[in-house]
Amino acid sequence: MEAMESIIQRYQHKGVSLVEAGVTRHRSIFNGLKALAGDQPNSKLSKPEVVIIHDAVRPFVEEDVLLKVVTAAKEHGAAGAIRPLVSTVLSPSADGCLDHSLERARHRASEMPQAFLFDVIYKAYQQCSDYDLDFGTECLQLALKYGQTKAKLVEGSPDLWKVTYKRDLYAAESIIKERISQQICVVMVTKKDEELTGLLEEMLTHEINDVKVTSGALYDAGRDLQQIILEQCYNFVCVHVMNFDFQETQKLLSMLEESNLSILYPVVVVSVHFFYYKSVPFDQKMENQMRIREFAMEVKKRNILLYGLLVCFPQDEMKLQESLRQGATIIAALIKERKSGLVGQLLVV
Amino acid sequence: MEAMESIIQRYQHKGVSLVEAGVTRHRSIFNGLKALAGDQPNSKLSKPEVVIIHDAVRPFVEEDVLLKVVTAAKEHGAAGAIRPLVSTVLSPSADGCLDHSLERARHRASEMPQAFLFDVIYKAYQQCSDYDLDFGTECLQLALKYGQTKAKLVEGSPDLWKVTYKRDLYAAESIIKERISQQICVVMVTKKDEELTGLLEEMLTHEINDVKVTSGALYDAGRDLQQIILEQCYNFVCVHVMNFDFQETQKLLSMLEESNLSILYPVVVVSVHFFYYKSVPFDQKMENQMRIREFAMEVKKRNILLYGLLVCFPQDEMKLQESLRQGATIIAALIKERKSGLVGQLLVV
Repeated sequence: MEAMESIIQRYQHKGVSLVEAGVTRHRSIFNGLKALAGDQPNSKLSKPEVVIIHDAVRPFVEEDVLLKVVTAAKEHGAAGAIRPLVSTVLSPSADGCLDHSLERARHRASEMPQAFLFDVIYKAYQQCSDYDLDFGTECLQLALKYGQTKAKLVEGSPDLWKVTYKRDLYAAESIIKERISQQICVVMVTKKDEELTGLLEEMLTHEINDVKVTSGALYDAGRDLQQIILEQCYNFVCVHVMNFDFQETQKLLSMLEESNLSILYPVVVVSVHFFYYKSVPFDQKMENQMRIREFAMEVKKRNILLYGLLVCFPQDEMKLQESLRQGATIIAALIKERKSGLVGQLLVV
Repeated sequence: MEAMESIIQRYQHKGVSLVEAGVTRHRSIFNGLKALAGDQPNSKLSKPEVVIIHDAVRPFVEEDVLLKVVTAAKEHGAAGAIRPLVSTVLSPSADGCLDHSLERARHRASEMPQAFLFDVIYKAYQQCSDYDLDFGTECLQLALKYGQTKAKLVEGSPDLWKVTYKRDLYAAESIIKERISQQICVVMVTKKDEELTGLLEEMLTHEINDVKVTSGALYDAGRDLQQIILEQCYNFVCVHVMNFDFQETQKLLSMLEESNLSILYPVVVVSVHFFYYKSVPFDQKMENQMRIREFAMEVKKRNILLYGLLVCFPQDEMKLQESLRQGATIIAALIKERKSGLVGQLLVV
C-alpha cells in the first residue's frame, strides 16, 4: 500500500483510490467493487454506472479499446477484449496424456480490459461461491453464471498481451523505447548556426525515416522549445558550432528539468559540437569536453541522459557531408538505444 | 527453396533435406513425412523410427526437451511439449458473445516440439480427411483420431514460445544478445601490458557480475586465444598501453575471420588504447585513431562489430581507477547492446 501511495504521489495521479488486494484475483476485484459500491461506512466513492476491470500487467492499453468495451457493456451488461489463440489448447487426462484438443478457430484468448454494468458484476461477486473466489479466473464467466449476462466479446490489439515472462519485459522495454523515439528536436544555439543545424536535421531525417524531426531555438528565449517540450518530445540534439562549452546545453537541461517531462520516461540530450579539425588547440578543448560527465551524472538523477558528440571535419565539402552523416547515425543510435551505460560519454566523429 | 538452399550452404549445415511446403501447416508436414517414408521413387532418405516435428518460429528449443519428447514418443507413440495457459480460453457464440469459458487450470497450450513413432504419424496423415489437412492445427489430435495414440504431454520451457508479433522479435533479439554477452575475453597485446590489462579485467568483473571474464594473449602466437575463440566467446577487448595503432587488433580480427565464429552471431571487438593525458601530442594520435572507422566498415561485412576506446588519465592513482571503471562501463554497454549504429565509433574516457 505504501509503495502504491508513493507512486501516486510521485506521478501526481488524480482521482485514484487504493483498495487492499485479496489473496486471489477474484477476491481483489471484489474488494475494489465493494469500495465503489458506496455502501461501506467510510466510503468517499459513489457508485458508477459502468466499471472497467484491467490487469496492471497489460500496460499498453489504448483509449480506443476502453471506449469499445464500455460502450458494449452499456448495451450488453458485460464486455471483454479477446484475441485469436496463438497455440492450440489441449485438455490433458489425469495420467498426463492428451484427452482431446480444442479447435483453435472456435476459441479465443480472454484478455483485458473488461467492462460491466456495475450492478451486474457486483451482484455476481456477491452471489458467487467461495470456490469461484478462490479458483476462478474469469469475470465474464461470473457475469454469465450469476448475472445471466452474456458478455459481448470485442477484438483487442496484440499490444494487450500479459507481461508475464522475462522475455515480455524485454518486449515491453523495446515498445516503450520505440514510442518515445518517434520525434527528435534539433536545437539551434545561436542564429548563425542555422546552416549546419539545417544540414544535420536533414541527415537525421534520412537516417531514421520513421522519425519526425522538428527544430527549436535557444537564442530567442526558447519559446518554441517550450512548446515542443509540452508536446512530449523525448529527444533533443543541441547544436554548437565552434563552441566548446556546455552553457547553452545547460539552459536546455534547465528547461527540461522545470517541465517534469522526464518523470515518466528518460529524456535523451545530445550536445553536439562542430569544429574544424586543425583550427583549435586540441588539448584544452578536450579537457573542457570531458567535463560533460559531471553534468551527465547530475542530470541522470532526474532521468535525463546526456551525451557529448564532437564532430570535427577538414575544410572540405565532401568530407563535411560524410562527417555529418556519421554524426546523424550516432545520434540515431543513442536515441533508439537510450542505454544508461553510455551516459556522459563523449563520442568523436 | 532457393533462399533455404543458400542458408544451408552459408552455414554449412549437414544432413538437411529440403521438401516443398504445402498450402497449409498439415499439408507441409505431410510432404515432409512422405519424403522420409522412403517409398518415393527418388528418395535418398530412409525411414526413421521416430520423427520430430518443430516450428521454425520457436527458435529457442533446447536439446533437453527434444530428448524428453523423443523418449516419451518411443514409449507412448506420440508426445508433445505443453505450457500452462496465460489467459483464460473462451468459446464465443455465433453473435460474438460469450458462450462459455474454459477452466484455465484444466487446459494447456500445445507447443512444439512434438515427436512420434514414424509409423503412427504417417498412417494418421495418410488416413485423415481433406478437412483435417486444410483446417487442422494439431498433430497430436491426428495421432489420437487416426492412430488411436494418446500422446504423452511433456512440460516445456517458457522459451519455446512462438515468435509471432513484432514484440516477439524484440524479445528474441534480447534473448540472443543476453546469451552471447555472457563471456568477455580481455586480450593482452604485449607482456608489459599485464598490469593494466589485469586491472581492466577486474573492473569488468565488477561491472557486469553475470559475465565470465577470461584473458588471452596475442604476443605468444595467440594459442590461448585460439582456444577461447573455439569455445565460442563473442566478445573481445584488445588492450594497448601507450600504443596508438591498430596492428595488434588487426591480428585478432584476422584470427576471428579465419575462425568463422561470426557466421551465426556478431562478434564485438573493442580496441582499447590507454595513454597518459599530456604525454603525447594529441592531434596526430587522434588522426591515427580516426582510422578505426575504415577497419570497422571492412570487418562489419563479416559480422564483426569493431569499436575504439581511448582511455586517457592523469598520473594520479585515484583517477586511474576512476577512468578504468568508466572504461569498463562503456565496454559493458557496447557488448550488451551490440548496436551496429555505433560501429567504428571512437569513444573517449
